[in-house]
Amino acid sequence: MSASLSHSETWSLLLLAGASLAVIANTFQGDGAPLIASSAFSTLAFSMTYAFVRWSGPSFIKAGMKGKDLCKLTPKEIPEAMGAVAASVYILALMAFIPFAFYKDIVAATSGGGNRDVVVTINEVETGRFLHRFPHSKLSSYQSALNTLQATTILGMADDILDLRWRHKFFIPAIASLPLLIVYYVDFGVTSVVVPNFLVPYMPNQTRLINLSFLYYWYMSALSIFAPNSINIFAGINGIEVGQSLVIAALLALNSSLYLVPFPGNPVLSNGYTTHPHPATDSHLLTLYLLLPFLAVSTALYLHNRYPARVFVGDTYCYVAGMTFAVVAILAHFSKTLLLLLIPQIINFIYSTPQLFKIIPCPRHRLPKFNARTGLLEASVTPWPAERPPSKFLAAVFFTLEKLHLLQVTVDPKTNRISSTSNLTIINLWLVWRGPMREDQLTRELLIMQTICGLGGLFVRHTMALFIFSMDNRGKYGHSFPV
Amino acid sequence: MSASLSHSETWSLLLLAGASLAVIANTFQGDGAPLIASSAFSTLAFSMTYAFVRWSGPSFIKAGMKGKDLCKLTPKEIPEAMGAVAASVYILALMAFIPFAFYKDIVAATSGGGNRDVVVTINEVETGRFLHRFPHSKLSSYQSALNTLQATTILGMADDILDLRWRHKFFIPAIASLPLLIVYYVDFGVTSVVVPNFLVPYMPNQTRLINLSFLYYWYMSALSIFAPNSINIFAGINGIEVGQSLVIAALLALNSSLYLVPFPGNPVLSNGYTTHPHPATDSHLLTLYLLLPFLAVSTALYLHNRYPARVFVGDTYCYVAGMTFAVVAILAHFSKTLLLLLIPQIINFIYSTPQLFKIIPCPRHRLPKFNARTGLLEASVTPWPAERPPSKFLAAVFFTLEKLHLLQVTVDPKTNRISSTSNLTIINLWLVWRGPMREDQLTRELLIMQTICGLGGLFVRHTMALFIFSMDNRGKYGHSFPV
Repeated sequence: MSASLSHSETWSLLLLAGASLAVIANTFQGDGAPLIASSAFSTLAFSMTYAFVRWSGPSFIKAGMKGKDLCKLTPKEIPEAMGAVAASVYILALMAFIPFAFYKDIVAATSGGGNRDVVVTINEVETGRFLHRFPHSKLSSYQSALNTLQATTILGMADDILDLRWRHKFFIPAIASLPLLIVYYVDFGVTSVVVPNFLVPYMPNQTRLINLSFLYYWYMSALSIFAPNSINIFAGINGIEVGQSLVIAALLALNSSLYLVPFPGNPVLSNGYTTHPHPATDSHLLTLYLLLPFLAVSTALYLHNRYPARVFVGDTYCYVAGMTFAVVAILAHFSKTLLLLLIPQIINFIYSTPQLFKIIPCPRHRLPKFNARTGLLEASVTPWPAERPPSKFLAAVFFTLEKLHLLQVTVDPKTNRISSTSNLTIINLWLVWRGPMREDQLTRELLIMQTICGLGGLFVRHTMALFIFSMDNRGKYGHSFPV
Repeated sequence: MSASLSHSETWSLLLLAGASLAVIANTFQGDGAPLIASSAFSTLAFSMTYAFVRWSGPSFIKAGMKGKDLCKLTPKEIPEAMGAVAASVYILALMAFIPFAFYKDIVAATSGGGNRDVVVTINEVETGRFLHRFPHSKLSSYQSALNTLQATTILGMADDILDLRWRHKFFIPAIASLPLLIVYYVDFGVTSVVVPNFLVPYMPNQTRLINLSFLYYWYMSALSIFAPNSINIFAGINGIEVGQSLVIAALLALNSSLYLVPFPGNPVLSNGYTTHPHPATDSHLLTLYLLLPFLAVSTALYLHNRYPARVFVGDTYCYVAGMTFAVVAILAHFSKTLLLLLIPQIINFIYSTPQLFKIIPCPRHRLPKFNARTGLLEASVTPWPAERPPSKFLAAVFFTLEKLHLLQVTVDPKTNRISSTSNLTIINLWLVWRGPMREDQLTRELLIMQTICGLGGLFVRHTMALFIFSMDNRGKYGHSFPV
């Protein structure tokens, strides 16, 4: 693999970067156009990631960050942990975007005009320029997101370099989410959730809101542990880690866009704002500011990581991707929506638990097995040696699962004992269902499955929610409670 | 080197950690005692760093992060880039400390009592708990410091792993300082400096304050490039990088403590606050919150890095140390004071420029030369081969510098030409002045020199400043302008 860009690549990227810079320069007008600036920064981030991943390949290999692609006829060593490059560019783009996200507020705070909703009187000896009128809590949320994503990157890099043990790794995201949760506590502190209709009659005073208090922090912490780890274990074939992250991020962005579309009969002003914007508009704008550059760097990384992969993405990418989802879900209060988009990950995690918790043996790698003769991938298996066969109970469970088409069980015809069972990942399960197939085909089918599950989840969320909850945060009764 | 702690080490660290946790638990009373909590977190951070550096040594060596200690009789490979461990613990301590730093404000914002200075009316649809009364700008400063230090860590780790080129490395701190400068702009925007007395008559309208506007951002950016790089090039012998950082941090902490001591006649209240605290109290408290855990992790690292070194600290440590100083200087407005404490680093940088900018050749390493016969360090030299001698002009400069005792010049007696000159670092210059000495002796003398220079700088700053500037930010005329 060449480490330099081809002529056409160089010119395309330069063109994209130049156009982005021109757009960015033009957003400093009127109230600013943060969404346009965010798109332009994302395009710039795409170009940078695409080039940096290519250029830094040899340095990574020299530093020992490399791995063999086992699902190929002639496995060769390619750079590993390239997600760290994408994550760094992502963070840089988020930093550079800060003044653009708050340009309207800066203008309002300095010019003295507009934004009269935020009128503040502070007796302070040291009066900085904006101290008295700037919406610091919004900036604070943005900064906490940035802090959490940076902590995730640092811990992910430590994992990629030092190859930490599973029991240490698992809690990495919990540590990284500290700045987010602490600032959520200091800054926001909304810990109430809406009670489903069918439970309301059983609540004291028929309350429709219940305060979970510190339990809500456990829940958010659990979410930020689950999202990164669940992406990290739905992995092993070219393009699947970045592919699933792209699908989830795109669906989250779609969901947030729904809140920014003007309602019928609600006129759009000349500055692009509607007269009565949805109360959760700010939260969903913040979501887009975080997701657009993520989509951009992930797309650039995907182009290098898709079949046949020329780089691996590493744990850093999986952690940062999952944490990005957790961060937006927590800050914009749609954690249940996120869980609807993570259905394949949740199923994969539940399906994996017997191996993750060592109830049945777990080999170091559970990725599918490459059949050199056919060139196709087959489900990989856990062998059950004759001297250590599965217990009677386990064997019964295995045969039941096989009947339900949830496991591939091989029986040794001589001893009539189970000689192997397929590894418990949905990637292997997919191969059990659909038979051996090429690696790129497998990735494609799994990503289509992810997309269909996600669209279904969003449909359920926006149509059924009103039957279960009396309030929805989309629609004119919107209150942006954590739903 | 054993990778496990001895019995006495284990028990000492556990005792320290236990005591810290007990103190931390006790600070949730009344207004809270953030400085005590900060000290306790720092003690905890010390224990963690001491243990983690020891434990992670073998993993670092296995990952290829190792280096040879060249100034020893039998150079052996020891773990490199261990500063990343110290930096990670430092950041973790800063994160965990957030609720304690703002405990008083959280109490004020939730109980409805106290702190009536900060009264704010905001018409917001979404009212989080504290949104209306919490001093977000303080939290915002703290978060931006954390963001900058995390970015510095990420870039430092990239440098340690990938061994970046000098021209790329140099600007790393500028990128890392982005979140700080952007938030400074959004949040504070004080860009005025006090004009020295002797220049006031020449100013328009005899103004005593001049607004540097965007130049002030260039200045802050330059400071955050200079501080980390200047520490990174004053390096090469056991303990010098961490040692100088400890001296500078201790002097900065001393300087900030001066602002927190009650004035005579200004009674201390029962809650530990004085009736008329210095207007810059908050800035200097923030400085201590950032410096105390830094001192703690650095001390733990120093114990492993001092002569004879069992670990190297790497670029990550030097960058994070320098950036910590730049961050506190910028946030608490004492950048000129910081420069007074960096006098040895400034001299070393100026003295190095001919080699840094390749005016005269610069070998890869400029650390002193180990003389295996005497066991002492001698000044290392740049050879001038007979076919490429220094120009006439350069030779004249060299001989002048030699007369001023600022260079060691060796002349080949046969050709009467310069055959070598000492490398341009003050570590080598010190050896030229004081003669060969043991490595630990050299580090000790340089650190004493750093301490004396720093104390002298602080003395000048607090006694002479009033002759040069009409306002001082220590004393009752304090205004905490950027002095």
